[in-house]
Amino acid sequence: MGALRLPALTSIFTSSSVRSPPAIFPLKNRLRLPIRRPFSAHSTAEKVVAPELGDGKAKVLDKDKDRVITPRSQDFNAWYLDVIANAELADYGPVRGTMVIRPYGYAIWEAIQEYMNVKFKETGHSNMYFPQFIPYSFIEKEASHVEGFSPELALVTVGGGKELEEKLVVRPTSETIVNHMFTQWIHSYRDLPLMINQWANVTRWEMRTKPFIRTLEFLWQEGHTAHATAEEAEKEAMQMIDVYTKFAYEQAAIPVIAGRKSRVETFAGASTTYTIEAMMGDRKALQAGTSHNLGQNFSRAFGTQFTDENGLRQHVWQTSWAISTRFVGGIIMTHGDDAGLLLPPRLAPLQVVIVPIWKKDNEKTGVLTASSSVKETLQAAGIKVKVDDSDQRTPGWKFNYYEMKGVPLRIEIGPRDVSSGTVVISRRDVPGKQGKVFGISMDPSTLVAYVKDKLNEVQSSLLERATTFRDR
Amino acid sequence: MGALRLPALTSIFTSSSVRSPPAIFPLKNRLRLPIRRPFSAHSTAEKVVAPELGDGKAKVLDKDKDRVITPRSQDFNAWYLDVIANAELADYGPVRGTMVIRPYGYAIWEAIQEYMNVKFKETGHSNMYFPQFIPYSFIEKEASHVEGFSPELALVTVGGGKELEEKLVVRPTSETIVNHMFTQWIHSYRDLPLMINQWANVTRWEMRTKPFIRTLEFLWQEGHTAHATAEEAEKEAMQMIDVYTKFAYEQAAIPVIAGRKSRVETFAGASTTYTIEAMMGDRKALQAGTSHNLGQNFSRAFGTQFTDENGLRQHVWQTSWAISTRFVGGIIMTHGDDAGLLLPPRLAPLQVVIVPIWKKDNEKTGVLTASSSVKETLQAAGIKVKVDDSDQRTPGWKFNYYEMKGVPLRIEIGPRDVSSGTVVISRRDVPGKQGKVFGISMDPSTLVAYVKDKLNEVQSSLLERATTFRDR
Repeated sequence: MGALRLPALTSIFTSSSVRSPPAIFPLKNRLRLPIRRPFSAHSTAEKVVAPELGDGKAKVLDKDKDRVITPRSQDFNAWYLDVIANAELADYGPVRGTMVIRPYGYAIWEAIQEYMNVKFKETGHSNMYFPQFIPYSFIEKEASHVEGFSPELALVTVGGGKELEEKLVVRPTSETIVNHMFTQWIHSYRDLPLMINQWANVTRWEMRTKPFIRTLEFLWQEGHTAHATAEEAEKEAMQMIDVYTKFAYEQAAIPVIAGRKSRVETFAGASTTYTIEAMMGDRKALQAGTSHNLGQNFSRAFGTQFTDENGLRQHVWQTSWAISTRFVGGIIMTHGDDAGLLLPPRLAPLQVVIVPIWKKDNEKTGVLTASSSVKETLQAAGIKVKVDDSDQRTPGWKFNYYEMKGVPLRIEIGPRDVSSGTVVISRRDVPGKQGKVFGISMDPSTLVAYVKDKLNEVQSSLLERATTFRDR
Repeated sequence: MGALRLPALTSIFTSSSVRSPPAIFPLKNRLRLPIRRPFSAHSTAEKVVAPELGDGKAKVLDKDKDRVITPRSQDFNAWYLDVIANAELADYGPVRGTMVIRPYGYAIWEAIQEYMNVKFKETGHSNMYFPQFIPYSFIEKEASHVEGFSPELALVTVGGGKELEEKLVVRPTSETIVNHMFTQWIHSYRDLPLMINQWANVTRWEMRTKPFIRTLEFLWQEGHTAHATAEEAEKEAMQMIDVYTKFAYEQAAIPVIAGRKSRVETFAGASTTYTIEAMMGDRKALQAGTSHNLGQNFSRAFGTQFTDENGLRQHVWQTSWAISTRFVGGIIMTHGDDAGLLLPPRLAPLQVVIVPIWKKDNEKTGVLTASSSVKETLQAAGIKVKVDDSDQRTPGWKFNYYEMKGVPLRIEIGPRDVSSGTVVISRRDVPGKQGKVFGISMDPSTLVAYVKDKLNEVQSSLLERATTFRDR
């Protein structure tokens, strides 16, 4: 968690471009951000110890108790863990450092996947799948790769009841096995560029762990490409950090800073590592995505060659790039507040919650009918919405609960609203009366337009707020 | 691969219901099918040895050589492996028994995932993710589970450079870790039913492997549910085998037989295992999906209890259910023929290929313009289509190539077609002139309707053909 310095971050950010990600880089602004570098091969440089996960005594959320979240200003780390537990985003696995991603947290990851999959395909990549077991000898082939990763490996030494002749590495990343296969598939320049991606789990034996941010096993996508020229590879590495940057700004409402890592922080085996760094609520930086220009480092180690147009054998030029479930942690720590989680509408599993309010039994039917009709209207318009009509909880309790869960908009419907054919809408990001608007018509086209508009407003406002905070 | 008998398969199949899956079961028809039981804990009972994978000398597809596929009738197994290699569905991984799923094969899996995800959510399940490392002691808690799985485990014994105190199992399935977590999340009847699913990789140390059918690591989905009553659990187990059955019939065009496994073939830890079995082209049966009623076996072993409405502590009733990348193997072996792969249109990564045909240079532009306009028309209608306009290959070569890749429809566009504003359409499943129709208008609405109609015809015809073959 330490206040590491990022000595050679070549920034692309200019403070005028708040709403949309900057298109061109690098500019040469030297930034000195404290930076978190989890999932990295160099974690020993970090100073602050995060609490261990998974001692088997995970806090269990007792649904019958009121939720208490440590104030963010009081203890940022305790706040983060409280939000994760109370919003039911994740839980500790039985093995130290592992994490169970619960449905609400996983749905955020699915929203990230959905967006990314489209972008990856648009930019010419195909999904595929490589085995996770890698012969140990592969890891040793690229000198700086083995140096970076060997302290973090999980090794399978027994299979089917027998000691294995060669121990197997549970993939910490797949460059080695990818190159082993690329070497078999690439023959001529006509086989290039080869551009693939996989969604997979990876394992790194981290000693200091923290849910989403740094776990022993995590989920990610890893893109791998091979090109005929150095220029093409560089262009691809830049293209993908640009895809990540756009995602961060436009979907996650996180004003990341894209740049280049210093030599010492470059990925083990890469020539250049591009990174997007985000500033968290505690003013620490988080590495949120990386894109590596691998040069010919792996193609030389694995003999990945092609015959060029002149009949000459050449080593391919490569890239790899990844974002992981850590991004979910970044979203929590960028937007969350003392009330809990606050999700950007474009990634929220639930964008609108409808809370029906009634006192007398004769009010109930009308209120519930109206609620469910409003729900269907919004759902038909592609809005992610649910009604919480349980009568075990008071409306006040539900308000707090869904605020804590970070749902961007709340719609209240009471007997008077039913009579007037209107609803009350509250923004999660603007607390109290200021964020509350009365008398919005239930008329489908009016309501849908209003809700979509408000969701867009919350989305922009989160990005603006995070940008202001970052530049303060 | 052996001709195992399935002694107590309680069939739901009646031969009149070819087009749609049967809705109610079980009927008590005893079937005696030879059956393949890969990925199972009882593989020692199988007689025929499949060739080993992954000796590092995988056949590499040389794009410059003509493809040769062993005739199906001559050697079914060799045919299967040839189809996988030539259609670029998968390749051998460097570790014995592992498989690399290549983009074209992975796209079939993605089509399966896309359909299933919708069905799982419709039936009330949420996706989430459990860690893949399971303490060895967990596996030992349920007696028949450990007996079934212990011969097939991969064990991590070293992490971060140190020998581990407790060895870790790389998940072969997740019932144990799921129950460990369920025990923390389930308190009262209000927490039930708990219905989740995960998409994940699993590892079973199989000695006899075969691409897609039985590999050391494979991809699957595993659903896990907990209920307050035995009846609910039974209903859920039946519901999910029904979802699988419908998928097999309606999407994969495979007329599976749903039934109940005999005691000896029941999943290690289950009370009842429901299965869908498909007959492959060599008349052997393939287990294509299973749904287990776990009873209280795991909840007793892990103490997964809830307080019922009367305040009494009860053990939950559970189910689990899975389909895997093996299904892709089932599709290949059900529909493929001597020309190669034949894909059901609803799961085909490419539904239509357009082959432009020209001889003289002055014909080329017109033909390519028409091809790309037809492509856009079809794409806009949601049809998966591409144009192969490469001039390195002859049209005849392309015809063979896309037949081998199993693309359901081919559209040919030559200079005369351009003049007449028509195209030629060929069905993959009806060889030669019989499957070829000339003079289909390029007019968008006519063409789209015709193509959609033909795709539906191919889909039904594959199911009918497979049903006739099965019942012969």
